Amino acid sequence: MYGLIGKMRAARGQRDAVMAVLRESTGALPGCLSYIIATDPADADAIWVTEVWTDQASHKASLQLPEVQAAIAKARPFIGGFEFQVETHPVGGFGLAEAKTG
Amino acid sequence: MYGLIGKMRAARGQRDAVMAVLRESTGALPGCLSYIIATDPADADAIWVTEVWTDQASHKASLQLPEVQAAIAKARPFIGGFEFQVETHPVGGFGLAEAKTG
Repeated sequence: MYGLIGKMRAARGQRDAVMAVLRESTGALPGCLSYIIATDPADADAIWVTEVWTDQASHKASLQLPEVQAAIAKARPFIGGFEFQVETHPVGGFGLAEAKTG
Repeated sequence: MYGLIGKMRAARGQRDAVMAVLRESTGALPGCLSYIIATDPADADAIWVTEVWTDQASHKASLQLPEVQAAIAKARPFIGGFEFQVETHPVGGFGLAEAKTG
């Protein structure tokens, strides 16, 4: 499995607008096992996103999907930047969805 | 919802021993919506744990469960420390399990 843990910074006051776009665009994408969006009680403009994919190729392919491209275009004006991102190799746990294929 | 993103450091060479304990002890705990354990390709002794609970009280209560207490006792000798931990407020996404109650 392939994982990403990232902290995104919204433009001042635009956090909820970015989160609304992220929430609309995260459904059962092929190869996606988990995609969780969170606010940070200590940082009002921050958004944490934790992702698990079957493999890195699935994640990469998702970025080319029309619905994901549309979401990126919609959210971009409200995103200040990315502060932190780490790649992980998830090995198990609880709450991983069944992957949708194709 | 209540979330935790943490990076744990295993004692040198003990990462897989710690992960085995974590994997054994993570089932459907009351209030747990997601609990994912991952290695870090850039850091051989690191373990990333990302958690989502219905609320902070559920997380706190889980630490008192006999099976969790046993896992903590079993893993403790192999844990070097905690390098990073952030609390989050998950708002949604994909892959959150149904919470078990009681």
